[in-house]
Amino acid sequence: MVRVRELGEFGLIERLRDQLAPEVRLTASVPLGVGDDAAVWVPTPGYNAVVTTDALVDGVHFRLDWTDWRSLGHKMLAVNVSDIAAMGALPRLATVVLGLTGEEDVGDLESLYQGASDLASAYGVAVAGGDVVRSPGGCFLSVTLMGEVEPGQAVRRDGARAGDLIVVSGTLGASAAGMRLIADGREAATAGLLIAAHLRPVPRVGLGRIMHDAGVTAGMDLSDGLAGDLRKIMAASRVSAVVELDQVPALPAVRALFPDDWRNLAIRGGEDYELLMTIPEDRFAMFAQRAEQVGATVTSIGRIVEADDGPELTLLEGGLVVEIGEGAWDHFGDG
Amino acid sequence: MVRVRELGEFGLIERLRDQLAPEVRLTASVPLGVGDDAAVWVPTPGYNAVVTTDALVDGVHFRLDWTDWRSLGHKMLAVNVSDIAAMGALPRLATVVLGLTGEEDVGDLESLYQGASDLASAYGVAVAGGDVVRSPGGCFLSVTLMGEVEPGQAVRRDGARAGDLIVVSGTLGASAAGMRLIADGREAATAGLLIAAHLRPVPRVGLGRIMHDAGVTAGMDLSDGLAGDLRKIMAASRVSAVVELDQVPALPAVRALFPDDWRNLAIRGGEDYELLMTIPEDRFAMFAQRAEQVGATVTSIGRIVEADDGPELTLLEGGLVVEIGEGAWDHFGDG
Repeated sequence: MVRVRELGEFGLIERLRDQLAPEVRLTASVPLGVGDDAAVWVPTPGYNAVVTTDALVDGVHFRLDWTDWRSLGHKMLAVNVSDIAAMGALPRLATVVLGLTGEEDVGDLESLYQGASDLASAYGVAVAGGDVVRSPGGCFLSVTLMGEVEPGQAVRRDGARAGDLIVVSGTLGASAAGMRLIADGREAATAGLLIAAHLRPVPRVGLGRIMHDAGVTAGMDLSDGLAGDLRKIMAASRVSAVVELDQVPALPAVRALFPDDWRNLAIRGGEDYELLMTIPEDRFAMFAQRAEQVGATVTSIGRIVEADDGPELTLLEGGLVVEIGEGAWDHFGDG
Repeated sequence: MVRVRELGEFGLIERLRDQLAPEVRLTASVPLGVGDDAAVWVPTPGYNAVVTTDALVDGVHFRLDWTDWRSLGHKMLAVNVSDIAAMGALPRLATVVLGLTGEEDVGDLESLYQGASDLASAYGVAVAGGDVVRSPGGCFLSVTLMGEVEPGQAVRRDGARAGDLIVVSGTLGASAAGMRLIADGREAATAGLLIAAHLRPVPRVGLGRIMHDAGVTAGMDLSDGLAGDLRKIMAASRVSAVVELDQVPALPAVRALFPDDWRNLAIRGGEDYELLMTIPEDRFAMFAQRAEQVGATVTSIGRIVEADDGPELTLLEGGLVVEIGEGAWDHFGDG
């Protein structure tokens, strides 16, 4: 085992670059990557660029006793690809900042980059540079991802209108259930599926690309949980929302393993990296059909309504109003 | 005083956005900034994008007992603008990741953003989003900056050719001298100038923009010190270099305050954020003239030569060869 502090910053950068597949080091649109003051990207003529960034801190966003490094490399890129997908854009290039104590095993960091390379390769993303810094207080990872989208086709959070259906892709709660299984050391035949949902989320790029033409009025990715994230669309669009909890899709495995708690996992669990969207009712059937063609299911779970005295979220279960707390995952609050 | 953990993530983000001047929140080319899954940037048609990222860690890259927060906000953007300048590009938009313990004073972070806003406004940069995360091990800042440059005009590190002159802008060692003055608590009439060079470096965007047309063959910004950074151009261009230490420009104040050590500060100090360039000899006089027109001085300090058995850096003083150590600032090494 070689530790980072033995190899040094520049030796480490070379070793990490070596883990990137050739098609991830440089792509047709990224002719200059790791190793200069800045990377060069040639956007598709006429397209707009989109930019997002997400950081993961050891002990807060991941635990090294709960994840392997290769999965962590997948996830640090996937959560950013998910933001680009939620804009309806294609991901193109990423920069990665590693904050390291110096005690890390270089082999572990190579695994991290192998995981990132696999994810990047699958989505046509170049890993085009970054920074490696010493962080005595603990390890952190920060990824910035750039993508591109046809002009006027970015799907924002502020376009939801009263009468629109509220729609989610896939199912909710699997990631939170997977994390609970890891934390509890609980074994189950379906554990692998749920744990994979937590450690290696699959961003919805294909679905994101059809949103605009299908009539989606607002969209975002579900990272902090349905209840909290829907409030962000409501605030940006100045609307209220009614969600039918009976309609919220969850895997049978999640319901079976957490019979008392699965609904909480589904609406407050977070880290699903599914898309949350709003769409006029008359466009929904066609959207669902087109979604299926790109390998995604979409489910209507409620409706946008006028905000009278500011945005209000109403949750219904069997036709009755259910009370829940604020619900958004706040990194400095109690969650 | 309100602490970050009392205000929470989303409240903090609003307070920080409020510190940004209107022209920094959105610009003509950045119609969607803080508050969605990703920011939207409309690059100038036909231009290439450039992307760089740099992170600063409390206790490693800055000390809160040595800097004020407003200067730190200036510096976190300035060091990235400097990388964009070194590519010959114009900076356009930035994303900022704040890793916070939760104990920080919200007012201090507002000062950080005011400093960032001033710098961004001066250079036409939009602060277009980012991420705020809890970092129990200590505060860190990570900035990604995007810019743009005419196709084929990005100035890279790999274009230096034997015979080229080695050129630096401004003077070297002022930042390192300033840091030494802060560390030692030493007072001097010229201290303010040197401390400002350390806390609030001025990136060389104007000079960077004229490099390509003036014939500059390779360029980078001086962040890790001349001796280490020149080796990066040598490695990328597969050339050797001879530097005349007598030609290295340093402020009289640096020489006067550090009579035994000023040369070391100038060639190994780092954080000058001046430009290091190579240029054919017959283009230099005209370059120097044009540099003056954009408010910069440039000084020839040596020459690129053929690399026989791999790149080698030779330092001459009074015509004699001087030995120094490896010289590059390595975050995991001894510096």
